[in-house]
Amino acid sequence: MPSTSLNERGNFQFSEAHEKTAAEAVARAAEDLSQFPQTLQTTTVPSAQETSIMVADDKLPERFQWVLNAPEPPGLWCKLQNGMTETIFPLKNKFQHLREHQMSKSLGNLFPILSWGKAYNIKVFRKDLLAGLTLASLCIPQSIGYATLAKLDPQYGLYTSVVPPFLYAILGTSREIAIGPVAVVSLLLSAMIQKIEDPVANPVAYTGLVITVTLFAGIFQAAFGAFRLGFLVDLLSHAAIVGFMAGAAIMIGLQQLKGLLGTTKFTNKTDIISVLAAVWRSVHDSWNPLNFILGCSFLSFILTTRFLGRKKKKLFWLSTIAPLTSVVLSTLIVFLTRADKHGVKIVKHIKSGLNPISVHQLQLNGPHTAEAAKIGLIVAVVALAEAIAVGRSFASVRGYHLDGNKEMVAMGVMNVAGSLTSCYVATGSFSRTAVNFSAGCETVVSNIVMAVTVIISLELFTRLLFYTPIAILASIILSALPGLIDLNEAYNIWKVDKLDFLACIGAFLGVLFASVEIGLLVAVGVSFVTVILSSIQPGTETLGRIPGTDIFVDVNQYPMAVEIPGILVTRLKCALLCFANSNCIKERILQLATGKQEVGDKGNANGKTQLIVFDMSNLMNIDTTGLASLKELHNSLASEGIEFAVTNPRWQVIHKLRLANFVDNIGRRVFLTVGDAIDACITAKIA
Amino acid sequence: MPSTSLNERGNFQFSEAHEKTAAEAVARAAEDLSQFPQTLQTTTVPSAQETSIMVADDKLPERFQWVLNAPEPPGLWCKLQNGMTETIFPLKNKFQHLREHQMSKSLGNLFPILSWGKAYNIKVFRKDLLAGLTLASLCIPQSIGYATLAKLDPQYGLYTSVVPPFLYAILGTSREIAIGPVAVVSLLLSAMIQKIEDPVANPVAYTGLVITVTLFAGIFQAAFGAFRLGFLVDLLSHAAIVGFMAGAAIMIGLQQLKGLLGTTKFTNKTDIISVLAAVWRSVHDSWNPLNFILGCSFLSFILTTRFLGRKKKKLFWLSTIAPLTSVVLSTLIVFLTRADKHGVKIVKHIKSGLNPISVHQLQLNGPHTAEAAKIGLIVAVVALAEAIAVGRSFASVRGYHLDGNKEMVAMGVMNVAGSLTSCYVATGSFSRTAVNFSAGCETVVSNIVMAVTVIISLELFTRLLFYTPIAILASIILSALPGLIDLNEAYNIWKVDKLDFLACIGAFLGVLFASVEIGLLVAVGVSFVTVILSSIQPGTETLGRIPGTDIFVDVNQYPMAVEIPGILVTRLKCALLCFANSNCIKERILQLATGKQEVGDKGNANGKTQLIVFDMSNLMNIDTTGLASLKELHNSLASEGIEFAVTNPRWQVIHKLRLANFVDNIGRRVFLTVGDAIDACITAKIA
Repeated sequence: MPSTSLNERGNFQFSEAHEKTAAEAVARAAEDLSQFPQTLQTTTVPSAQETSIMVADDKLPERFQWVLNAPEPPGLWCKLQNGMTETIFPLKNKFQHLREHQMSKSLGNLFPILSWGKAYNIKVFRKDLLAGLTLASLCIPQSIGYATLAKLDPQYGLYTSVVPPFLYAILGTSREIAIGPVAVVSLLLSAMIQKIEDPVANPVAYTGLVITVTLFAGIFQAAFGAFRLGFLVDLLSHAAIVGFMAGAAIMIGLQQLKGLLGTTKFTNKTDIISVLAAVWRSVHDSWNPLNFILGCSFLSFILTTRFLGRKKKKLFWLSTIAPLTSVVLSTLIVFLTRADKHGVKIVKHIKSGLNPISVHQLQLNGPHTAEAAKIGLIVAVVALAEAIAVGRSFASVRGYHLDGNKEMVAMGVMNVAGSLTSCYVATGSFSRTAVNFSAGCETVVSNIVMAVTVIISLELFTRLLFYTPIAILASIILSALPGLIDLNEAYNIWKVDKLDFLACIGAFLGVLFASVEIGLLVAVGVSFVTVILSSIQPGTETLGRIPGTDIFVDVNQYPMAVEIPGILVTRLKCALLCFANSNCIKERILQLATGKQEVGDKGNANGKTQLIVFDMSNLMNIDTTGLASLKELHNSLASEGIEFAVTNPRWQVIHKLRLANFVDNIGRRVFLTVGDAIDACITAKIA
Repeated sequence: MPSTSLNERGNFQFSEAHEKTAAEAVARAAEDLSQFPQTLQTTTVPSAQETSIMVADDKLPERFQWVLNAPEPPGLWCKLQNGMTETIFPLKNKFQHLREHQMSKSLGNLFPILSWGKAYNIKVFRKDLLAGLTLASLCIPQSIGYATLAKLDPQYGLYTSVVPPFLYAILGTSREIAIGPVAVVSLLLSAMIQKIEDPVANPVAYTGLVITVTLFAGIFQAAFGAFRLGFLVDLLSHAAIVGFMAGAAIMIGLQQLKGLLGTTKFTNKTDIISVLAAVWRSVHDSWNPLNFILGCSFLSFILTTRFLGRKKKKLFWLSTIAPLTSVVLSTLIVFLTRADKHGVKIVKHIKSGLNPISVHQLQLNGPHTAEAAKIGLIVAVVALAEAIAVGRSFASVRGYHLDGNKEMVAMGVMNVAGSLTSCYVATGSFSRTAVNFSAGCETVVSNIVMAVTVIISLELFTRLLFYTPIAILASIILSALPGLIDLNEAYNIWKVDKLDFLACIGAFLGVLFASVEIGLLVAVGVSFVTVILSSIQPGTETLGRIPGTDIFVDVNQYPMAVEIPGILVTRLKCALLCFANSNCIKERILQLATGKQEVGDKGNANGKTQLIVFDMSNLMNIDTTGLASLKELHNSLASEGIEFAVTNPRWQVIHKLRLANFVDNIGRRVFLTVGDAIDACITAKIA
């Protein structure tokens, strides 16, 4: 290195000539690389490895300066500002859209229906019509059942299948999602609201509260989308949703035993112990075998047709019309045999006619408004989590992109509008979306077809449902539950990530043994604890050189890597060196450095450790406690006569090391690569 | 590469001959490297860079297998088991000790006094004697003051300066720490216990409760040490301790205004608003100017001597005896002028004689035992945090190692013994340890000298303190407070780490405006929120090649790094790809990949992105949501015609990628280095 010299602070200085050469090399390399796309078809890029030997040795001191003289990273305020700007006002993108697209395209961006509407033709419509009718045949009995689950009058379920699907069809981006009432949200609503208002004693106030909660849920959902707070939904991890859904399905199933057994007395609580006790009491006190027989026979009919539909694709239509067929058949049976006089519970009167306006039912100044808003928030997150999980998985199958924030706005608007027209919270249903997809839907028009069919039913056929037995509704809900329990996925989670499975099982048990809210809370809590644990677990790994290269890797992961005697190259197993782990890590490195000699680790450490190279490449952040520990570590090592070098610190980390004077403390021994560090330290020793 | 061939699954296979060569190369390299310590003095290691070109190209496919065929990492149970074993039963080390050291050395390990006791001589003792006497002159007035702060009779402070220092001298490893009552713990005790029992109305029960809390604190401390749970103390970060101490110092200072103003009515609350209101009331109602004049004049005397002592090292003794001088002088003044008849509050009777046994005062079956245990836990953590912070910083200055777990056992034993002999919680004092160090102490014998001096005072001089004015005690406490407020350190924290400063200021404001416990809770909470935020903050950084090397680095940190047109090399800014950030990261990478063309980022992205290389080297962990997002990302990129490759996954991550079938999903495009990935993808394209 003839052109470098040491200045008084001990770091290398370059002569101007050398700097010029380096600059030229950079320019030359950039030139070479810029021709890459052209040469892609004919030759490989001139591999940097081929040239690295020639330049590596006289590049070393320069690289050493690069590490220390990195530009200052953006500060906290700057980062916060950028984050806010990017999250809330993605103006850059918006301007771009305005510039690059015409106004019509921008409108199409707001209302996706305008984009695909132009290319819509009769052939596509035929498919959508078929899918929509299939959907309606499943949706009508399910909606009535879910309304009962939410402790509302049956017609509210049908109302919810009218307005929200229409609005979603205009605003939403998913093509397969089936909008309407769903089981989990219905359970969640009744579980939380009946603590405030009794649905049996005071049905009008209860219904008003449900509609108020729907309004709040819609407002929250729209706000999440508008302010790009979609990440709030991400707080429910995939594993947590799997566990939560399974727990909720079991709770819903147990609740349906009330209808299946035909009892009147039942518990309002949602934990498994209370419900099982209630079932036990019902079985001993008052149950009607006719209800049970009717319900179970049609349940087995529905499940059999579904089984057949899975076996033979041609029989798919059978499984989709089975629920409606069951309703029609059982209603006829009850009507003909007048079984309702023998204890078979029936739906009785369903109010006919379209959705009435429900603005007067909103309780915005009532005593429970604050609680309604709280419940609205929980329901909004759960409903969005289900809808977005469903939408994303089908979008991924069909290979198109789902805009999470736009979806949220669509969901929010449809629920706000729904709350003004006697609907309760609607979202994308797991089971019906799958049916919609299997029935061959092409666009969201199938939702419109379904809504129109529901409107016709509301106008014409509600009085035909007078004799429909409640046990049939229970069996239709029961038949939809197996789809919510994904044992396969739970096993996958267990296989891949045990800690994630803990969140899953936590949500499941929380829902079963405590309540729906506590299940959610447990899931989020466990998820964050696992984040903390995997961020701070103290631990170091020893790196070894892959023979014949200058790549240093974990010796446990790559058994062929060779440790260098006398030099300990170490890296953290965690990403933060902070208050919670820095002391433990300090002690571990000290132990490794001073104890290695005695233990004779792996047999190849036959010399005393003379140099510790601390590879910081995976250290995301360091706090003041971590900095203090590093200083203490350096002092302790120095008093043992062991040198200490740091390699490849990231932007934030090198900035903090400089601010805390640690760089000067360790004699500016900060390097870009482990190889550089070892070479430089040996060179210094010889000098 | 003549000896490689592609097998049916698309990964490279080696002929036996090639494998043999590779094995030989490994063996040869290991041989070369093992001679390193011998050659250290004469030549540098044969740099791997020199040989890397020759072997790199035909090593590539082998390396590619190494990544995918890494051995299975230890499972969760295995890790848990190891962690427990290492933490709770460090048997390996113990056996080692038994084997390598004789019995006497092992005893010396248990009782450090036996180790250094042998080399102890009169010369060292002279230094310790001087330091111990200096310490005692400061300790006696402070102990009486802190006992008043803890709302106990003055003699309890003196008792606490007798038994604990003796026991610590036998068991402890720190040489400079000064054991006894401290301000923050005294405040914490009175603040929490007076909520249960009124110290004025029922002093006997209050004292019993304090002693019970001391017992529990000692048990907890000893248990932390014995079960190696020292990390619990680490939950209080350095920044939190700085903020907490400053807040506590201000609270203590305000409490002292009671003594300084000579009022009787004062609030029991510890938040700043209540205390300021009480001070305001006292100033308007009933205060005695004589107390104030006496207190203030001696306070300025103590502060002046300290200022002089700092300016001139020779006058250091002046500052250390100033408190005792003030006590003697003011007592004389009051005795001679009988100022107590004119409203100057005096200490009055201090019980003389050695520590009485206090076993009968322990309330182990009382109604408040559970609460006492809870308070004991908090006090134990705070006391340990102060002692270990003090001990570590002085051990670091003198360059010896402080065993945290052994320290905790020593603290625990001394407090348990203290609780049986009328002491309250003792720990290492910030201010007195500094004085001990400055006075030239060599070993912990200075603590013994101090304790003996206190014993003599208890036996002979307590009746001389009858006329000591309370205002003097207040001014002695006040003079010790500036040492607890470390503005300099707070500024450093602000400079280095803004989020850490948030924990600091949170603890400070929490102590001031709510209570001591809430301040601690805020600090721990803020600390963990910052851990979560820095672990999950979504963000990616673009990597570029350093010209002339195959090292890829962040283009923002190293402006000389060059991006390769058509190839996006990206890395996460966080260490976890999990539920909370995976979706956001997926969208960001998609946007970078598909939007780059439009935006013309940095001007050099003149081609459409054809390959995304995702550098996983800093990814510590991935959960099932993250895996699902990666799959979705791959699908979306594939539908855009963009290739996706992964490099350098860590042990846990590659294991999970394999389990989740992601490796097969992306066509086994997993590489060790970014260079390998780019080369292999281009080679594949040409083929």
